[in-house]
Formats: sequence, structure tokens, C-alpha cells
Amino acid sequence: MINLGHGADVASMMLKYGKRENILDFSSNINPYIPENIDKYILEGLNLSTKYPDVEYLNLRKNIGNYLDLDYEYIIPGNGASEIIYLLMKVLDGPVGIVNPTFSEYERAAKINNKKVIDLYFGKNFELDINSIKENINKFKSLFICNPNNPSGNVESLIEVLEILKKKNKFLIVDETFMEFVYQNEKYTLVNLIKEYDNLFIIKAITKFFGLPGIRLGYGITSNKNIISKIWEYKEPWTVNSFAENICGYIFKDKKYIERTKNYFRKEIKFMIENLNKIKNIEVFESSTNFILLKLKKYNSSYIKEKLFVEKNILIRDASNFKGLDTSYIRVAVKKREENEVLINALKEILGV
Amino acid sequence: MINLGHGADVASMMLKYGKRENILDFSSNINPYIPENIDKYILEGLNLSTKYPDVEYLNLRKNIGNYLDLDYEYIIPGNGASEIIYLLMKVLDGPVGIVNPTFSEYERAAKINNKKVIDLYFGKNFELDINSIKENINKFKSLFICNPNNPSGNVESLIEVLEILKKKNKFLIVDETFMEFVYQNEKYTLVNLIKEYDNLFIIKAITKFFGLPGIRLGYGITSNKNIISKIWEYKEPWTVNSFAENICGYIFKDKKYIERTKNYFRKEIKFMIENLNKIKNIEVFESSTNFILLKLKKYNSSYIKEKLFVEKNILIRDASNFKGLDTSYIRVAVKKREENEVLINALKEILGV
Repeated sequence: MINLGHGADVASMMLKYGKRENILDFSSNINPYIPENIDKYILEGLNLSTKYPDVEYLNLRKNIGNYLDLDYEYIIPGNGASEIIYLLMKVLDGPVGIVNPTFSEYERAAKINNKKVIDLYFGKNFELDINSIKENINKFKSLFICNPNNPSGNVESLIEVLEILKKKNKFLIVDETFMEFVYQNEKYTLVNLIKEYDNLFIIKAITKFFGLPGIRLGYGITSNKNIISKIWEYKEPWTVNSFAENICGYIFKDKKYIERTKNYFRKEIKFMIENLNKIKNIEVFESSTNFILLKLKKYNSSYIKEKLFVEKNILIRDASNFKGLDTSYIRVAVKKREENEVLINALKEILGV
Repeated sequence: MINLGHGADVASMMLKYGKRENILDFSSNINPYIPENIDKYILEGLNLSTKYPDVEYLNLRKNIGNYLDLDYEYIIPGNGASEIIYLLMKVLDGPVGIVNPTFSEYERAAKINNKKVIDLYFGKNFELDINSIKENINKFKSLFICNPNNPSGNVESLIEVLEILKKKNKFLIVDETFMEFVYQNEKYTLVNLIKEYDNLFIIKAITKFFGLPGIRLGYGITSNKNIISKIWEYKEPWTVNSFAENICGYIFKDKKYIERTKNYFRKEIKFMIENLNKIKNIEVFESSTNFILLKLKKYNSSYIKEKLFVEKNILIRDASNFKGLDTSYIRVAVKKREENEVLINALKEILGV
């Protein structure tokens, strides 16, 4: 009924290949470790859920504002990053440039809202191609870049792009959903430039880093008053539930958890890349975040996806439907060490060492 | 930032009059009793929330389908009734008729989606005015009726309207969010006609009856395949969170709770109306659901709202901003007996006996 071409298709794979237990899901890029005491905060949220959430989410926005050291008025809460993406496509000026290959919801949201899409592409090894942005700059009014990019995993410095767009009166939207996984992300995030640049909008979420996609909390950040007021004008009421509202009083203050997570992924991505590089018939792309893009040299993506699922109970992301990629690409998440070892061994068996 | 003119404005009242504890909120029409063991189901949902919800919500739709004895394909889950209302305004043919006074989100959603609104009105004592619908039938393509209606509380038989609209190739949308509170609601609900009439769409939610507005779960029901597929085409992904998804495996099966709730409100609404009728300077409208509309004969609604808040720590709904009402109307919810007594005594003191 809804065809998004996303990773989390455990249900549809089971429909095809039969019901299975304990599938190792490497297709979703989710931190496998959630913050401590979440159960306590969730039960606290249950009491709140007998009332409507505050339609303006004042406390929630203040908690996020404190986390980012920003004025709460710059924060727009949403039902995951996706609500923010759809709201943006309602209020932004088009045409909308999208740098591919990337998260498919930008394009879907643009099309649903009748916005013309201008496809741009990352360069060699998925590095940012400033020239292509410069060359195409008159074709779009707003530009979407995912940073670190999904599915390629690279993180880029976007200050030059921001400056170029500013000069041309264009709007930059950066999806930093995966930014917190990046070691020394302060070098790459544009959050600290929000006040200074009113042509900047950042999308974030607790989905990936805090490991809670099912709780549905994302947020948008901008100092552009026109965009803020337009979004509130179009925003549907109460889209963030009481559980999400409540945990934000806690998780952002858990500095230990945040540090531990960053350190874990720094170490683990290195381990994964080293070991994946020992496997035959694949090219491994460098990643700064919690997933890795792989290029298959011999088999195609659907064959490997099926083989891993049927024979190894492992689900990976067939990345062939990302614009700009093809049937030689797959994407795998970085999970717990023992799970990552299972994946590496399975790929070794199938692809050779 | 967002101005909906709804009831749940505890936060804005406290901004105006100072922070307060233990406010008795009669402005939101929520069942004060939630199903048993909800905490257990919520914690179960926490495990699920570490994964993305099923984007097609197959289990959720089956649970709702079983509850209503309908094919799950007829069910569209949403983030509260409001997501369903906004989706409808995207996909329905306009102009859209709305029978007033009623829930303001229909109009807001219509306007945001550039749908022309045709205002119709209930008749004397807020009874359904079939003639007004017949007279205006060529002006709209789709008609919204809330049944029981918010804020008037009356429940109506809509079969004749459904028939008239069917003959004229028009679509009927009935918001049955409050239907479960009605004693012998099987006489009024159109759920059993969903299969037979493809010009019918019903909106429901667990918000009010199951007392959980903060969990955010509503749903739409129709057998119209064209509308179903259009809605899925426009629907944003993962708007229902894992906690809402999970409790639906339980609450609809809790027949004892459902019966107890129905019986409680049947008895309590009678108690409330009897006692409100003893108070001077108000007219009490009959209600079949969990709230009551009152017409003030002497004071205006904002004065009484302020007086109850400041002097009695009670929040009521100033109903003056419902289209077709004026500053003589207020609305109160039916809550627990001891709370209802506090309200009645406060009104007695202020208005006289």
C-alpha cells in the first residue's frame, strides 16, 4: 500500500520467505544501545499521556534548545525527521535541489507537495562536489544535503556551500540525523551557525543516535522567522506523543551515554571497515557514522540480500534504488560487536576471503 | 505560535494567571479512567520502539479490524484523528461542507489544503437539519458531520443523510470519535454500513474513550478503494508510534472495561445534567456522550472561565469561538464523580441555585 523503498522491510521479507525468529537487522541504521532508565521515563510519560500534549511543546523545545545551546524558538518538534521534511516541502520555495544518492523521503515529500526536484550528485567516492552545486545554482531555490550522507556514510564540511547559497539568496537544508555518531562532529555540524545564517535549516532526530525510532521524535532548527512562522501555520497539532515529550527531559542530559555511544561507534566502525576490507569481491567506502556502503564486484545486491536472509537470517539494505547507485550497492548498519562479527563471517562465507 | 482555539489550554492559562497545581481540567473531553495493565503494555512497546514501526501497520490494522468486525484493508491508522482529517482534506473532492458548530480542525485542515468550505448549521437544539443539507447539496462534494457532535453532545441518526448523499454522488465523512460513549451506540454508528456504502468515511480514535490523548492514535475507515489508495499515496511514514501500535493488541479486547466505561457515562451524564439543571442562569443541553454544552443566561463565557480558573482552579472550555455559537456558551467534560461534584458546586456558587 505504501511503497517507500526503505530499509526496514522485515515484514515484507517474511511475507516472501516465511516467518522467522531473531532476524539480525542490518538494514536499519539504529544505535543498538538505548539510554539507561528509559523504562522509568516511559512510565512517567504514561501519566502524561492521559492529557493532550502541549500543542506548542514549550518544555520539549526548551529541552532540545538546552541540548544544542540554542533559543527554544528556533526549535520545531516533529513526528520523527519525516514530519519536518514534509513540512519543509510545504513551506520552502522551489525548485528543490537534492544531492544524491540520499534518503528517498526528500524526493517523495517534494513530489507530494508539487515541488520540482533538481537532482544533483555527490562526486567521486561520494565526496561533496562544490562545482556541481555552483554550476546548477540557478536551477533551485532550496538545497537538501544529508550530512553525514545516507547511504554513503561520508561527512562533509558544508560551510562553503552555506556561504555560496547565502550570497545567492538560496536556502540550505542539512539533515544531520546521523551527525552525533561522528567523532569530533563539532567540526562538521552547522548547529552553531544557526543564529548567524538565516538561510540555514537543520533536521535532527533522536531516532538513530538514541536508538528509538519507534518513539517518533525529530526536530527542525532554524533562525529564519519567516520559515518558523510558516511551519507553525501548516503544522498539524499534537504530532509528538507524550512519551517522546517526556524522555526529552532526560536523554539529552545523559552526557555519559552520549560520550560512550560516540566512542563505541568510533572504535566499531574502524573494526568493521578493517574486517570488511579483508573480504573478497567488495569495495568498502569509508564511513564516519554508524553504517557502511559496500559495492559488490561480482554479485548483485538482490542476490546477496536474499542469500543473507535465507541462509543466515540477516537482513541488509539493498541500496540499488538510491538515485545514482545501481544493483552493485548494499548498505549495512554497525551494530553490537557480536552481531557485527556474525555479519562479517557470513559475508566472508558468501563472498570469499 | 500555533493557534487552534482548542480546549486544552492549561499552559496558556497558567502563563496568564500564574503557575498552579492540580487544576481540574473540564475543558478536554477525555475519559478519566484508562484500561487496566496499560503500564505493562507500554513497557512492552518500549522494546518495539527500538525498531521502526511497520510502515504499513498490518498488525495494528488487523487489531482495529477485529474490534470493528471489518476487513483490515478498510482501516487507515493515524497520529490521532487529526492526521486522518488532514489526509482527507488532501484527497477528497471539494468544496467541503461542514455542519457547525463543530470541531475546528475540519476547517483548518480544509483551508491549509486550499479546499473551499461551505458552512452548514445544526438546527434547533443542535438537532440535525436535513432540509438545510438538501437545500445546500449542490454546493459541496463532501460533507463532514461530527456524531455525537462536539461541542453540542447530541447524537443523530445519519442514515437518511448517507442515502441522500449517495444518490447525489457525494461523500459523507462522519467523525465518530465520541460514539463509544453513547449508550446503545449500535443504533447510531455507521460502522456497519462501511462495506455497503462506498461514499462513507468514518473517523475514530482511542484518544477520548480509552482516555489516552497523549499516545496519539486515530484511524479512518472506508471501503472506497480510490480514497484508500489516495490516502496511502499521501500518507507520511511511521506517524503512529510503537506504544500506540502495541496497546492495540490489548485494549480493544478488554470488553469489561468497555462496558464499564459505557455504563459509567450513561449514569454520570444523567447525574450531571440533573444537577446542572438545578443551577440558575444556565441552559443545559441534552448530551449522549461525555461532555455537556451550557448556555449562560447572565454572564459571558470568558468571565465564567476566568472566575472558575482563578477562584476554583477549574478549567472549562469557552465555547464562544465555535462557528455558530457566541459568548454565552461554555462546554464542560464529564469526569470522575467527585470531580463533577466540585464543578457543580463551583457553578452553583458562582451562578446561584
